[in-house]
Amino acid sequence: MTLSPTPRSTLTRKRDRARDDRQALYDVLDAGLVCHLGLVLNGSPVVLPTGYGRDGDTLYVHGSTGSGNLREAARGVAVCVTVTLLDGIVYSRSVNDHSMNYRSAVVHGNARPVTDPDEKLRGLRVLTDHLAPGSWGYARDLNAKELAAVSVLAVGLAEASVKVRAGDPTDEPEDVLNSPAWAGVLPVRTVFGEPESSADLAVGTPVPPHVSRRARGR
Amino acid sequence: MTLSPTPRSTLTRKRDRARDDRQALYDVLDAGLVCHLGLVLNGSPVVLPTGYGRDGDTLYVHGSTGSGNLREAARGVAVCVTVTLLDGIVYSRSVNDHSMNYRSAVVHGNARPVTDPDEKLRGLRVLTDHLAPGSWGYARDLNAKELAAVSVLAVGLAEASVKVRAGDPTDEPEDVLNSPAWAGVLPVRTVFGEPESSADLAVGTPVPPHVSRRARGR
Repeated sequence: MTLSPTPRSTLTRKRDRARDDRQALYDVLDAGLVCHLGLVLNGSPVVLPTGYGRDGDTLYVHGSTGSGNLREAARGVAVCVTVTLLDGIVYSRSVNDHSMNYRSAVVHGNARPVTDPDEKLRGLRVLTDHLAPGSWGYARDLNAKELAAVSVLAVGLAEASVKVRAGDPTDEPEDVLNSPAWAGVLPVRTVFGEPESSADLAVGTPVPPHVSRRARGR
Repeated sequence: MTLSPTPRSTLTRKRDRARDDRQALYDVLDAGLVCHLGLVLNGSPVVLPTGYGRDGDTLYVHGSTGSGNLREAARGVAVCVTVTLLDGIVYSRSVNDHSMNYRSAVVHGNARPVTDPDEKLRGLRVLTDHLAPGSWGYARDLNAKELAAVSVLAVGLAEASVKVRAGDPTDEPEDVLNSPAWAGVLPVRTVFGEPESSADLAVGTPVPPHVSRRARGR
């Protein structure tokens, strides 16, 4: 199954950076932690960072019912959800060919407010599993009041595009021949540090495996 | 100088996470590498990742003159530029209080196309200094053709908001008392790896100090 080739999800340039398979979309979405949710508020664009999670071809985002932006999005308006992973700084022999290695996914759709209690709980589980795998079932469940105070939105993945730049700089042939400058990639990585226990934690409370494993990158 | 308290740049909730000094805005913008540029295209929001640089109270973004989104933005339309730095995953004793530590800046403004050749060159230098400090003056300068093919936009920083979450989870008092669960923060860091020379680089070309220093985090 390929991604949908609507005009706004079709890349008009640097087509070599476009990936049209669905797995590439899943890979980017599953590797990110923060998405940037765009919507139009009073005629102006607003872009907000937020957590998300993916369940098949549905993306879930959530927020407080007290958030004006979320309330607007929950009216079913058009949104754009973008996830970007920076992989490297590309140093070329010319200033003009400097670039970044990255993977990005851009999803267009209408935000559907999730009102069915079962789907809402499912969406929150998907969000939690994405943010903090292993926490669902370990940490205390949401109670009815907490569930009522959170707003969950669903965005379908039908219309999306993926863009990837990887590898060496692409210098002009003359520059490769004539320039004495170094060219290459400085990798950029997102890593987890050592878990830091909360100051109010009872002494001796162990770091659970789902957190310690992640700290060690496993 | 504080940030402008217009309605759309005033946080309506979790005000404790808002920072209203200009230095906090500069700090977030200067620490990020990728921004998410939002604009309205045919009535729908579009959010695109791109590089940027800051010169005082002006943010510069750039792109190809062949990019439809950039062409639209260059018409002086309203844009929203958001920079987000993820600092940690916040594990609380309840699923509901799980969160992220982050710093984010949201800038609202109209994109001004930079047409003056001096400012355009200045904007590109600012962008290069941000993406790859030390490359301007080391790598080959832009030639006239390259300069003509790039589009530079300026966005003022007059209307912006900064949001920061840091530190321990904020659990409900009952959970702190009664839950046996671990609570704390898993730090998230963005680090540079070892520079990887381009396959077409002449053998023996040294990695310049402005790249090797960065790889070592200095």
